[in-house]
Amino acid sequence: MRIAQVAPLYESVPPRLYGGTERVVSYLTEELVRLGHDVTLFASGDSVTSARRQPFGQRALRLDPSAVDGLASHMRMLAHVYRRAAEFDIIHCHTDYLGLHLAHHSKTPTVITLHGRLDIPELEPLYCDFPEVSLVSVSNTQRAYMPRAPWVATVHHGLPPELFTFQPRPGSYLLFLGRISPEKGVDAAIRVARYTKVPLRIAAKVDRVDQAYFESTIRPLLDGPEVEYLGEVDDRRKNELLGGALALIFPIDWPEPFGLVMIEALACGTPVIARRRGSVSEVIRHGETGLVVETEDEMVEAVARARELDRIPLRREFERRFNDQVMAEHYLEVYRRILSEKHSGGLRIPAPLAAAAGAS
Amino acid sequence: MRIAQVAPLYESVPPRLYGGTERVVSYLTEELVRLGHDVTLFASGDSVTSARRQPFGQRALRLDPSAVDGLASHMRMLAHVYRRAAEFDIIHCHTDYLGLHLAHHSKTPTVITLHGRLDIPELEPLYCDFPEVSLVSVSNTQRAYMPRAPWVATVHHGLPPELFTFQPRPGSYLLFLGRISPEKGVDAAIRVARYTKVPLRIAAKVDRVDQAYFESTIRPLLDGPEVEYLGEVDDRRKNELLGGALALIFPIDWPEPFGLVMIEALACGTPVIARRRGSVSEVIRHGETGLVVETEDEMVEAVARARELDRIPLRREFERRFNDQVMAEHYLEVYRRILSEKHSGGLRIPAPLAAAAGAS
Repeated sequence: MRIAQVAPLYESVPPRLYGGTERVVSYLTEELVRLGHDVTLFASGDSVTSARRQPFGQRALRLDPSAVDGLASHMRMLAHVYRRAAEFDIIHCHTDYLGLHLAHHSKTPTVITLHGRLDIPELEPLYCDFPEVSLVSVSNTQRAYMPRAPWVATVHHGLPPELFTFQPRPGSYLLFLGRISPEKGVDAAIRVARYTKVPLRIAAKVDRVDQAYFESTIRPLLDGPEVEYLGEVDDRRKNELLGGALALIFPIDWPEPFGLVMIEALACGTPVIARRRGSVSEVIRHGETGLVVETEDEMVEAVARARELDRIPLRREFERRFNDQVMAEHYLEVYRRILSEKHSGGLRIPAPLAAAAGAS
Repeated sequence: MRIAQVAPLYESVPPRLYGGTERVVSYLTEELVRLGHDVTLFASGDSVTSARRQPFGQRALRLDPSAVDGLASHMRMLAHVYRRAAEFDIIHCHTDYLGLHLAHHSKTPTVITLHGRLDIPELEPLYCDFPEVSLVSVSNTQRAYMPRAPWVATVHHGLPPELFTFQPRPGSYLLFLGRISPEKGVDAAIRVARYTKVPLRIAAKVDRVDQAYFESTIRPLLDGPEVEYLGEVDDRRKNELLGGALALIFPIDWPEPFGLVMIEALACGTPVIARRRGSVSEVIRHGETGLVVETEDEMVEAVARARELDRIPLRREFERRFNDQVMAEHYLEVYRRILSEKHSGGLRIPAPLAAAAGAS
């Protein structure tokens, strides 16, 4: 199948450090190539792939000091993607709603995976105006905020099994991994570490918008003996930190659409202690692959219980549900279904925009 | 002619207080209706017009506490505009590049007036990819940052002549009007007032992004006897303040694309003391309708000279160059030229995106 993968330009594909969306695009792209498909990757100029590479700009926008208007860059890249639409059987965008206007006018069907939060009132009306576009959610709970949008599937994220090393024995510390911002709950993780006297390692980036929160609220909490702040880490270090942990602590307080770090932990055999928000209950089976909790008191109890969990079934769960081949084959099934609907004359709801717009 | 006017949704058309773009869209729309054209205005739900009204949302986004994702609202409005493209001879957008993807696929030609700053590196490559779209600059100097873009005309802004009252005698104070932010130079205006002992009135809004700058840098300068801070004012108060001023002081230090307040001053017969940036030399004739200066020392000298300028020629200049009928007729000339090029098979550069994109 001839597939275009369209990544955001904020991080390279794969990203060097943090960057969930670009990471998943990379895993999916590489696995589709391995399965024999003809894949073209539209991504920042410093991206690396075994697919056909269609670079935009010199480097990822987050690392480019000359980048001013990222939206304009995305608008331009998408115009280039759809100019080449006839070269592809399917166009798979990871750029939210920015390609909708072009998708509407394209004979090549568009799949959009929505990676971000959807609890934003303007989104459902917008997507509902484009029923000819096929939306994929990364968890079922992600859909709750826009139940009427043109969903076609939920596809959970997947990782290459060789990327993370299974560690059969539980480690000695709790790990907080990812990004520091109010909704990620690192303050709760610190309080749990202090109460339980189990050391906490924090490997996380701080975005510019969260710098004030970090300095005023989090940095004062970092001085105790239980807490070690490591900053942002690369994949090698992440693998070591995850494998060596007693548990990943994921005290989110927002509707996290997926939470890639949870399946990275499972790949290492490391249980996850997570607050019941967003996708958590879909990814983690309480009492089997981790502990799904509500309060900080329950997190404290969960630390003791995490130590008792057998780590082997966690890796098995990862291999069964969350490896990159499972993800890629699920996406291929989605693509094939859309193409067969297209060729059978379209079982989909007809597009309300199609009749009146001045398409040439 | 059947004309769609597409306004940004951030302010109502016309805006209640500050809002240059929406104000100009209102003047143009009303004057096109008065000249006998069939105009449809796409704008926020609290907009008021004598054209056909196509409201979006309950109210302007800046005043709507439930508005989260303004970009999504604009993407949705533009889809609705182009769904109705066949109803219009021309679509005139004031929403920057957000409609480009749809304009490319529409048989109805699109004119985009660029109201904002263009010294952003991503813009020229983007607009150059859409040569079938007709761009209008609001000053010639505005084009300097993207000389290769598909410009078709410069159309200066215009105002209804009855909106501002000519005042034949010079007033006693300097006026700073508009918005407080570093590039608007209100600090320079305050220093000039202190040095010359001519009182300064400041009628300006402070955006949320500029609140810290206002508190740290400007508020401490407001306590002297020369300076009176009035906050944001409505049109009636603006008319009084402008007419009663000795001069408008416009010490900008950025490439202001037009500067509507300069022609509002001329309409009252009030001279403009402005720093030579952006459109200033195009709008103000030095020594005749105002003083075009570079340094604060020159601003100080200009205060004395402004008192000596005859105010009658300023109003005449306004009526000759900057009234709303002049603007509307100039736009009509642009629309007619584009339509005749379209009907004659197109003298314009062929669109490079047209051939390959999967238009239906």
